Amino acid sequence: MRKLAIGIMSGTSLDGIDVQMALIEGSFSQTKIKPLHFLHIPYESSLKNKIKDVIEEKNLNLENITSLHFELGEAYADACIKLCETYKIKLNEIDFISCHGQTVWHIPKSIDHKTPSTLQLGEGAIIRERLKTTVVNNFRSADIAVGGEGAPLVPFADYILFRCSNKTRLILNIGGISNVTVLPKNGSLNDVIAFDIGPGNMMIDAMSKLFFNLDYDDQGNIAKKGSIIKPLLTKLLSHSFFNIKPPRSTGREMFGHQYINEIVKPFYAHSPYDLICTLTHFTAITIRDAIDQFVLPSHSVDELILCGGGSYNEFLLELIKTYIKPIKVIKLESLGFNGHAKEALAFIILAHHTLLGLPSNVIGATGAKRAVILGQVHHYNKSIKEDPYAHL
Amino acid sequence: MRKLAIGIMSGTSLDGIDVQMALIEGSFSQTKIKPLHFLHIPYESSLKNKIKDVIEEKNLNLENITSLHFELGEAYADACIKLCETYKIKLNEIDFISCHGQTVWHIPKSIDHKTPSTLQLGEGAIIRERLKTTVVNNFRSADIAVGGEGAPLVPFADYILFRCSNKTRLILNIGGISNVTVLPKNGSLNDVIAFDIGPGNMMIDAMSKLFFNLDYDDQGNIAKKGSIIKPLLTKLLSHSFFNIKPPRSTGREMFGHQYINEIVKPFYAHSPYDLICTLTHFTAITIRDAIDQFVLPSHSVDELILCGGGSYNEFLLELIKTYIKPIKVIKLESLGFNGHAKEALAFIILAHHTLLGLPSNVIGATGAKRAVILGQVHHYNKSIKEDPYAHL
Repeated sequence: MRKLAIGIMSGTSLDGIDVQMALIEGSFSQTKIKPLHFLHIPYESSLKNKIKDVIEEKNLNLENITSLHFELGEAYADACIKLCETYKIKLNEIDFISCHGQTVWHIPKSIDHKTPSTLQLGEGAIIRERLKTTVVNNFRSADIAVGGEGAPLVPFADYILFRCSNKTRLILNIGGISNVTVLPKNGSLNDVIAFDIGPGNMMIDAMSKLFFNLDYDDQGNIAKKGSIIKPLLTKLLSHSFFNIKPPRSTGREMFGHQYINEIVKPFYAHSPYDLICTLTHFTAITIRDAIDQFVLPSHSVDELILCGGGSYNEFLLELIKTYIKPIKVIKLESLGFNGHAKEALAFIILAHHTLLGLPSNVIGATGAKRAVILGQVHHYNKSIKEDPYAHL
Repeated sequence: MRKLAIGIMSGTSLDGIDVQMALIEGSFSQTKIKPLHFLHIPYESSLKNKIKDVIEEKNLNLENITSLHFELGEAYADACIKLCETYKIKLNEIDFISCHGQTVWHIPKSIDHKTPSTLQLGEGAIIRERLKTTVVNNFRSADIAVGGEGAPLVPFADYILFRCSNKTRLILNIGGISNVTVLPKNGSLNDVIAFDIGPGNMMIDAMSKLFFNLDYDDQGNIAKKGSIIKPLLTKLLSHSFFNIKPPRSTGREMFGHQYINEIVKPFYAHSPYDLICTLTHFTAITIRDAIDQFVLPSHSVDELILCGGGSYNEFLLELIKTYIKPIKVIKLESLGFNGHAKEALAFIILAHHTLLGLPSNVIGATGAKRAVILGQVHHYNKSIKEDPYAHL
């Protein structure tokens, strides 16, 4: 039964909403998915500011959080509708929608002794009502409930999309956070490992905003004009997270504004070009170190496939190529995929399994005790009559 | 297909968790439900304090809210397990669990121009994992998504449980908030109306705690020793909420500690017996006024069935009987139901319809534009193998 679905992703970089449409059928290694249409819709500035305020806990109250939860639902629905309109797809052709939601809090168990928990905003009932189709969301909680980190979840999709019988592949995604999936050649889902590496674009973006009022360092043009500030680099690399053995996951809680204020701010007297250059090297070095420490001892790697917003930072790309030599680096685009769209596509794959009653967490990625069905389902019943209570 | 289910309810009074087990089959007016076992489990004081802090926005941060969401999931799971253990029911016999969750915010559209939204905490994925069965929760959002108040939702169950071919019945529930369901004789689901009346026990409980360190005024023993403070009663009755035409809903946001500080605190020099007596009369008078204003003009009422914690306040019961003469008042118990358990039972009925893909909001209760499936489903698949990825 082939399904037409939309995946909605909005990441920690707060740049906006990715919506991807695809056809999907089958399950696990028999899954067939055909990406169709993609849009990136930047957050409207008022909504982006609301999200920022909640994440940064500015004047936080229950009304802010709860209203944001519903307003994000509307924004996600708007994005889906715009995708359908742009590509002339009727809403009633959509079989289901998968929505990751906007993460505002993620405390996986490895960090400290707090209650493991996670919170993605974006009310699924709102999306369901606007799109008149079934919605799956809140994927991370179920993995945390079985002792996992709740992240990364994309490795399941990486396995389906990129596993290879004669090559061991790394899938390196550089979003706000960078993470890697290891797909051993001819391996099973149980052989997959994956983990968060550290900050990807998050800190580069923050400095680009602060010093140049730019949302990101386009193609690395700022970074390539600077030089490394060695004491800052040393300090950045000394973060204890980098020594945690996978499974591990991280986010804005660890590498967000508080961390920037503490570690980077003392260096604000330096040239902003040097600051951003240093942070770009930092991202590349943490990638190399993670591969050296946690992948190469057990796997010989044939190629690395780079995706995520960071793959468009040419300077960062060149740094990564240099640092991880001799591993071959290719961009996701060269395999015929839209590098911006992979995460949204991945959540279609996860939701599809949810609706089939099948698990989709990767134990080697999240550290969960076992495989579970991810996500919660807001069912839509297309056969309910206009007035279902008329004769009751 | 008869199902064995558990309903979990925890109301605005924060007294704890109600868990009700029942057998259910059929749908709409053909629904057959047999209540089996019930437990009320008071919140542990540390958890109760956490909930209070979040609701009162004391040092509110994302960690508090998110960890509470997961901790409540654990507490709800504990309550279900205790119910099963107490009555020697094996966990794998339970077909589904319905969890209302702990409301920490509810902004229905009628109050002001804020984004209509609602937030019930208690992560369903945690309950699912602990109980190894399907969980339905988050019932209110779907109704808000179709323009409803998200409350009251119990009228659907009232219709199924208490409709009568030859009597027009009122079901009056007195919890933290009091609400009424009107079941016209021989009526359909479309004839049902229901709405929140105002504070039920909420303010009485708050004063009992403040002046007597009691969780509630047991049987009304405090109130019956006092007299009415007329200026306070006048002030309480002047609240603009009482003039809003149904559908309407309210909660702690409107009649919680802020309101008490503003309206009741100036009278703290009076005898606490008089304060609680006045608040008890206030609850009874708002019930009479609501019936006079919004029910009697269109319906002749045969009897009123009283349920909820407030039905155990004998003084309040007598006041209600006096104020609403000549309407006959009977307690839910006299119909063979446990008055404490009705809400939890109601959410079994709602979740059962959700899992059948059927709607369960009552338009005459919530003001929604149409009937929709309520709730989101955390599916459990009992046939998933120990290692589902072994051969993938």
